[in-house]
Amino acid sequence: MHLEQINSPEDLKKLPVEKLPDVAEEIRQFLMESLSVTGGHLASNLGVVELTLVLHYLFDSPKDQFIWDVGHQAYVHKLLTGRREDFPTLRQYQGLCGFPKRNESEHDVWETGHSSTSLSAAMGMAVARDIKGENNRVVPIIGDGALTGGMALEALNHIGNEKRDITVILNDNEMSISPNVGALHKYLGRLRTHRHYHKVKEEVEYLLKKIPSVGGTMAAAAERVKDSLKFLVVSGVLFEKLGFTYLGPVNGHNLDELMECLKQADRTKGPVLVHVVTVKGKGYLPAEQDAEGYHGVGKNYKLEANKGVKKVTTDEPVKYAKVFGDSLIRLAEEDKRVVGITPAMLAGSGMNAFAQQFPERCFDVGIAEQHATTFAAGLATQGLKPVFAIYSTFLQRGYDQLIHDIARQKLNVIVAVDRAGFVGADGETHQGVYDIAFMRCVPNMVIMMPKDENEFQHMMYTAYRYDDGPIAVRFPRGTGVGVEMDAEWQQIPIGKAEVLREGRDVALLAFGSMVPLAMKAADQLAREGIRAKVVNARFAKPVDTELLDQLCEEGTPIVTIEEGSSIGGFGSAVLEYYAEQEIQGMSVKTLGVPDYYVEHGDVDSQRREVGLTVEKIASTAYAMVPLQRRRA
Amino acid sequence: MHLEQINSPEDLKKLPVEKLPDVAEEIRQFLMESLSVTGGHLASNLGVVELTLVLHYLFDSPKDQFIWDVGHQAYVHKLLTGRREDFPTLRQYQGLCGFPKRNESEHDVWETGHSSTSLSAAMGMAVARDIKGENNRVVPIIGDGALTGGMALEALNHIGNEKRDITVILNDNEMSISPNVGALHKYLGRLRTHRHYHKVKEEVEYLLKKIPSVGGTMAAAAERVKDSLKFLVVSGVLFEKLGFTYLGPVNGHNLDELMECLKQADRTKGPVLVHVVTVKGKGYLPAEQDAEGYHGVGKNYKLEANKGVKKVTTDEPVKYAKVFGDSLIRLAEEDKRVVGITPAMLAGSGMNAFAQQFPERCFDVGIAEQHATTFAAGLATQGLKPVFAIYSTFLQRGYDQLIHDIARQKLNVIVAVDRAGFVGADGETHQGVYDIAFMRCVPNMVIMMPKDENEFQHMMYTAYRYDDGPIAVRFPRGTGVGVEMDAEWQQIPIGKAEVLREGRDVALLAFGSMVPLAMKAADQLAREGIRAKVVNARFAKPVDTELLDQLCEEGTPIVTIEEGSSIGGFGSAVLEYYAEQEIQGMSVKTLGVPDYYVEHGDVDSQRREVGLTVEKIASTAYAMVPLQRRRA
Repeated sequence: MHLEQINSPEDLKKLPVEKLPDVAEEIRQFLMESLSVTGGHLASNLGVVELTLVLHYLFDSPKDQFIWDVGHQAYVHKLLTGRREDFPTLRQYQGLCGFPKRNESEHDVWETGHSSTSLSAAMGMAVARDIKGENNRVVPIIGDGALTGGMALEALNHIGNEKRDITVILNDNEMSISPNVGALHKYLGRLRTHRHYHKVKEEVEYLLKKIPSVGGTMAAAAERVKDSLKFLVVSGVLFEKLGFTYLGPVNGHNLDELMECLKQADRTKGPVLVHVVTVKGKGYLPAEQDAEGYHGVGKNYKLEANKGVKKVTTDEPVKYAKVFGDSLIRLAEEDKRVVGITPAMLAGSGMNAFAQQFPERCFDVGIAEQHATTFAAGLATQGLKPVFAIYSTFLQRGYDQLIHDIARQKLNVIVAVDRAGFVGADGETHQGVYDIAFMRCVPNMVIMMPKDENEFQHMMYTAYRYDDGPIAVRFPRGTGVGVEMDAEWQQIPIGKAEVLREGRDVALLAFGSMVPLAMKAADQLAREGIRAKVVNARFAKPVDTELLDQLCEEGTPIVTIEEGSSIGGFGSAVLEYYAEQEIQGMSVKTLGVPDYYVEHGDVDSQRREVGLTVEKIASTAYAMVPLQRRRA
Repeated sequence: MHLEQINSPEDLKKLPVEKLPDVAEEIRQFLMESLSVTGGHLASNLGVVELTLVLHYLFDSPKDQFIWDVGHQAYVHKLLTGRREDFPTLRQYQGLCGFPKRNESEHDVWETGHSSTSLSAAMGMAVARDIKGENNRVVPIIGDGALTGGMALEALNHIGNEKRDITVILNDNEMSISPNVGALHKYLGRLRTHRHYHKVKEEVEYLLKKIPSVGGTMAAAAERVKDSLKFLVVSGVLFEKLGFTYLGPVNGHNLDELMECLKQADRTKGPVLVHVVTVKGKGYLPAEQDAEGYHGVGKNYKLEANKGVKKVTTDEPVKYAKVFGDSLIRLAEEDKRVVGITPAMLAGSGMNAFAQQFPERCFDVGIAEQHATTFAAGLATQGLKPVFAIYSTFLQRGYDQLIHDIARQKLNVIVAVDRAGFVGADGETHQGVYDIAFMRCVPNMVIMMPKDENEFQHMMYTAYRYDDGPIAVRFPRGTGVGVEMDAEWQQIPIGKAEVLREGRDVALLAFGSMVPLAMKAADQLAREGIRAKVVNARFAKPVDTELLDQLCEEGTPIVTIEEGSSIGGFGSAVLEYYAEQEIQGMSVKTLGVPDYYVEHGDVDSQRREVGLTVEKIASTAYAMVPLQRRRA
């Protein structure tokens, strides 16, 4: 066993090169065993075992800087840089982060989570190096999917022109090409660095032209979007014209080839792009065959006797994503103006079935949030009803387009803001906690969030019926609360809250996912003799001013509760309304996510950390009740 | 005179084709005369006279949809679609908009202002057309500069793969190529649609290779960034590989060639890209020779006897952009870690002199806001001191990168937020009124704004000295208030407001540009016997809690005043603080920009419209003073 002796890249370098295949095998075994317990991104890490080994064997981290795009493929890097023993805590509360993290190791020089940032970061590091007169290597490692993101293309355009020494590793996953193009991949696998390069290029282009078009679903269309860029990539034309030296394609699982190619890259001045072809899930057959299914594995996977992990299914309430997908299908069945858009989150957003049933009305545009947002706007100008599904954290990338294109033109776009609130194991890069604040200041926006999965379907319908501009429905990651689903859809009046429980000692105004907690808090308060009104706020914009007026008349103290930034959120909307109405003396306390980045872990721990708990709601409310009413 | 008879595209079509050159001449004359009075984007519109004529002559707007990227080049389109008589009101309050505007004309099918949105919008319109079974043309017109924006590249990747009928007009301005490549342009001008295409392509590539590299300033480096993409463009390779039929380059001032080429494009199925080479400022020699100088002309330009317009300079206070540029140079002289970054706003941001003096530390990355933001983050990880200059409205494009890359990693980036507040004639697409709200919810951010140009230099220094994460200095468009500039720099304590005038009847808490108005309002109040405290807030985050505590102790009513969204802004920060401290009964009124898009006009009219005036501040404050204190 070599792995146990490797606690730093120096330890790795001590091994003779012929031992590396053994190390690779040990790493694969380690990952499969470790992730079968903790969950994590199995397939992508199995795909970069050799690549990571060679990078650390040849180059000198942390002096040389490895920048892992997206970052979920950095487990091998973590293993080789002294964090092997932390793997049992992977992606758990206060445990090892699933992404590079600067405070974890000096070898993590750049933190990621969102895709397509590595090239811009690398350019910054290379410029800094040159200004400081240093001579380290800067090595971003980026996948072919992340390359379609606009910011990566912007960065390529910049890097290619500055002629600084940067070695871009393009990690081209076999996964991203549909199975019927296997001929190409076999071919790519045989290619060697720069040999007969021009001839090879022609042949690859010829081969690509012969690939039958992948018809059927729009998921396939999304594949084509990616493939077209791949076409440029494989031929090398894009990079050459942009000023890169292009090396490859090279087999990313052949240590000798990788070694040879990276050495050549290292001898080349100026920006180099090394095109490495890898297989997601390499070395574990089930994962190789179903890379998407094994992209990230949850904790309910079990190691099979001889072959890695296997999913263990459990009965659980319906997922919000499923309700979203079902609602979308139902709307599309009733109205042919309904179209669905997602930036590379087809499965995650629950749109697979919709894509199957309405391929011509489903658009997966790839990692391209800016384009997706304005594309939705364009559709809406023509009277269609675009439903734009995007994770809260990625909507940050379409923010200008939301302000400038959708909301300013007051277009009827339904923004389905998925993963709103805490997201759990993905952690601080993915928390969906800013959208209330950043959407609330945008004119013409309506922002709502359901208390459960049943109300969610009614909100989807409400959004569909709304025709006075954009409307956002935010909903949490994961499963609903387990309520019955109504057969009949109901339209919810815009800006109207729902009183779930009467009481005049204190009012709990809860937004979306916080409603069940508020209900439980009211139970606790009742045991103290305090009658709490519980309000399902439903809307963060516009807020229910009639209700707020009424609470003012009654003089009821208010606690607002939301799974979003306390700054500028729903609670602030309540404060702003009272200030605007020149109402003083209202006692309002706002509970939300405090002003720092909440790290990875399970959602319950994250909520507990920031005080979004039944206990905290109850105690906050209790303290606000006038003394004479307590224990009345 | 034909122009007077043209009130719609139908009128234009009635003319025989041989009259079009006369119409073109008349349009040029009209624009030069009209803009000499109103100001406006002269050069870019002179460049598209023939192109616009041919589009309207051949195609059928509004059934066919013209989508003007950026949109400042749509004057000719406006002229030909019945808005000639509105030109005396161009870009003025309640007058003709300087950009396409849907409520102005059915011919304006898409509103712009920010660049690079046209392709995404066009894709939306084309998909909608196909779903509805209609057969109109969709024609986005995009400049070569806008094409480097990430979202345009994302859209190209999508359009090329869907094979829908879209005719992209690439308006390739001669301006964007430096003078020493004139040979290429002469050459391009002689090229003809598709004839000897492959041979031509090789020759163009050969020619391009012979272009001497444009050295010297980093402005030239930015040119190269653009040129590299141009290389791909001119050779057509990029578009062909992405699935477009590429036609051109064609001389954009030759009506016959344009006509022939667009007819051919119209016969071609699927996405077509027509590469049109135009000259910015065409037909007006001074503008042709200094297209940047004449890009947009202000009102102080005068028509010369025979040749268009001439700048009339006036004495006015120093511009904020100049203070920024000077401060940047001073910082760079003292500390070689200081680097400057701008996304295509070198001149606008006042960075020209800095670029001249420190070419190796100045980075104009072109229209690439996402990349620029993360590039700054990358520089900061290596201990450099990046000063990232960006207009408030464009920072919206780097929002995710601010949250995910800069602030989350707590990197020392100075974000110089230019054009914060109302911007005047550019109108609703460019108003810098959301940044306080959208930055305030981002952890680790510090947000400040100076009361005048002198304090601005101190804030630049303060930002430089700050080393605990990102810090934003927002400053308004245009000139300062005319105060003396201190020779010595002062460091301002973070989160500390400045009391400018004492008083206990009411407190005016003004942020940045609103401070001078608050001072005048205090004068007015004094005449009514009311003593107003005037506070220069300086920081929107963190707010000065000591001051807020003191105001609470004194029971002084508060008016907050800011040139930014009332929702989630500085005023809300004050409300949030009191709520957090469980302080009830404070009388706080927040004045800011209300919840709608404020249209173009002069800044004073915009401020008046929303009540950001001395009178409104004074009357609001007056109403808050307890009755017994009034006329005391």
